[in-house]
Amino acid sequence: MFTTNQVQAAPIRVSKSHLRSAQPQAVVINSGVANAVNGAQGESDAITMASETAALLSLSLEEVLVLSTGLIGVPLPIDKISKGLPQVVASLSDEGGIDAANAIMTTDTRPKHSVAATDDFAVGGIAKGSGMIHPALATMLAVVTTDYALVPDQASEFLQAAVESSFNRISVDGDTSTNDAVILLANGAAEAPRVDTEFESALQQVCRDLARQIVEDGEGATLLIEIRVSSAATDEDAVAIARQIATSSLVKTAAFGRDPNWGRVIAAAGTATSDRGPAKVDVDRLELSFNGTALFSNGQPTGGEPDMDTQVLKIDLDLGIGDAGASYLSTDLTREYVSINADYTT
Amino acid sequence: MFTTNQVQAAPIRVSKSHLRSAQPQAVVINSGVANAVNGAQGESDAITMASETAALLSLSLEEVLVLSTGLIGVPLPIDKISKGLPQVVASLSDEGGIDAANAIMTTDTRPKHSVAATDDFAVGGIAKGSGMIHPALATMLAVVTTDYALVPDQASEFLQAAVESSFNRISVDGDTSTNDAVILLANGAAEAPRVDTEFESALQQVCRDLARQIVEDGEGATLLIEIRVSSAATDEDAVAIARQIATSSLVKTAAFGRDPNWGRVIAAAGTATSDRGPAKVDVDRLELSFNGTALFSNGQPTGGEPDMDTQVLKIDLDLGIGDAGASYLSTDLTREYVSINADYTT
Repeated sequence: MFTTNQVQAAPIRVSKSHLRSAQPQAVVINSGVANAVNGAQGESDAITMASETAALLSLSLEEVLVLSTGLIGVPLPIDKISKGLPQVVASLSDEGGIDAANAIMTTDTRPKHSVAATDDFAVGGIAKGSGMIHPALATMLAVVTTDYALVPDQASEFLQAAVESSFNRISVDGDTSTNDAVILLANGAAEAPRVDTEFESALQQVCRDLARQIVEDGEGATLLIEIRVSSAATDEDAVAIARQIATSSLVKTAAFGRDPNWGRVIAAAGTATSDRGPAKVDVDRLELSFNGTALFSNGQPTGGEPDMDTQVLKIDLDLGIGDAGASYLSTDLTREYVSINADYTT
Repeated sequence: MFTTNQVQAAPIRVSKSHLRSAQPQAVVINSGVANAVNGAQGESDAITMASETAALLSLSLEEVLVLSTGLIGVPLPIDKISKGLPQVVASLSDEGGIDAANAIMTTDTRPKHSVAATDDFAVGGIAKGSGMIHPALATMLAVVTTDYALVPDQASEFLQAAVESSFNRISVDGDTSTNDAVILLANGAAEAPRVDTEFESALQQVCRDLARQIVEDGEGATLLIEIRVSSAATDEDAVAIARQIATSSLVKTAAFGRDPNWGRVIAAAGTATSDRGPAKVDVDRLELSFNGTALFSNGQPTGGEPDMDTQVLKIDLDLGIGDAGASYLSTDLTREYVSINADYTT
């Protein structure tokens, strides 16, 4: 699954084209430069990166996917990459997952990895991402591997469902990158009989865990915000309202100040819009709580005083209309976030 | 014109109801408390504020509009307001406009007022707003008066057009308040023959001037960002792309750092969506410049180095597709913005 941004980086375009003609066997990733909006040179550099990796691994060009993350509009230092690739390939090992998770970090402060295993198979993943994080997809890369047996073309079906409830439900700053990608590789080495519900559950667990790690490492974040919207009229409304709260600068700055400014949550909910139009909100029916303390109920403030001295701010909004719900993870908006992003290129 | 937020403050609901039954003769405004989501007490307080003003001015209740701005979910200190109203009414004067502009400030650092006059008539306005500023409408109040002659029900028609190109094209933080309102009062005292095109132009000038003052006074802002999108496929696309750039945290933090991180502008453009779906963007056709210096052209970076040492950052994006265009005003996102909004209630 790749970014929905209409401006797609060269490695995304190259990887998509490779997927149309072969089953992927390897993924090569660089961090620091996104290789986006670099014109024909960008495309040629991405192909070089894939073809040199393919040669070193005795694969065909199309069996290699290529991903990049970092600064937009800066040429890929392809000579450096070419020089380093033999060393990278030589150091491949069964225990190398965490080294890879470390290598793909940009403004990340820690590597992100996760595993879920049953008696029959395992699902493991690495990811990077801490800024430009917004659903569909976040600015993030994730590679998930499994020894579960999938037939060609089945991976995207399983992945789509898992991504919808994980990477597509997180927001750090509302920006969607040109380079986002989540890749699932399955080799069937487990040789166990398939139980798809177990695989779905393990895949979802790994994706959710990685997504949560990305938000927890959100640029400059001091707090995780867990938003739960319930009793919405429709699923679309629930997601739209959760997203509007998750991306509100005013909700996020108040969270940074540990300020129980719940009015901003209601104000954000009131402006949410999905593809189908404004999400239904009736102020007389909604119930809002922070960290379990009711703040608004029966159309008026309760006077409750929530405990704000926590590492996670749980915002629960019950709309009292229907029975749809959605969750979202976000972070606070801090002075440090501004500092990190004010001085990124210069 | 009132906020499109589905959660509407009590004064908004009361004013709307008054407009349905009378022509407004006076507007009473308080700042500090928004009187939003306060249940039946909020409604009753807003009516008290209007009715006491009406009594002091010998008007009917419905001839008075009431507006509030400030903190959500805090009761209106109606006793204080009742006590102060006689003094407020006693100090009414033809020269009181700027006093009123001062009185309605919240986190504003300066009053906002504007006037446009022809030989035949004048249009004057006051406004407040510096945070929770986002179109449709921004968190803002504006009252515009004129001695031009309009017949009942005509004001909203003229106002709608003026607001669309002014207050609906500004963003400070992407949040839309529960209390936004723009009011136009016309008394016909000029007694001059009507030339509607001249009035439209004067009204638009005042609204644009007030909107620009609101953005210039954006919370914590150090820089004004002027976004111009041209050669878009449709008007909807042009507005959606301009808005996406105007509200991107990454564009706004880069502007704060005077970092010419133009890649973020292209990335934002690529994710813009209007009511009609994704806005059309073709990276090979677009041309981007900052402060007149071309940065991206013919599908690749130009290597240009824009002068970033300015008080206004002009971002020009030519999409090279059609002939629609749109403008938007925004501000940078600063550490000071975060500080102001992290500690607003506590």
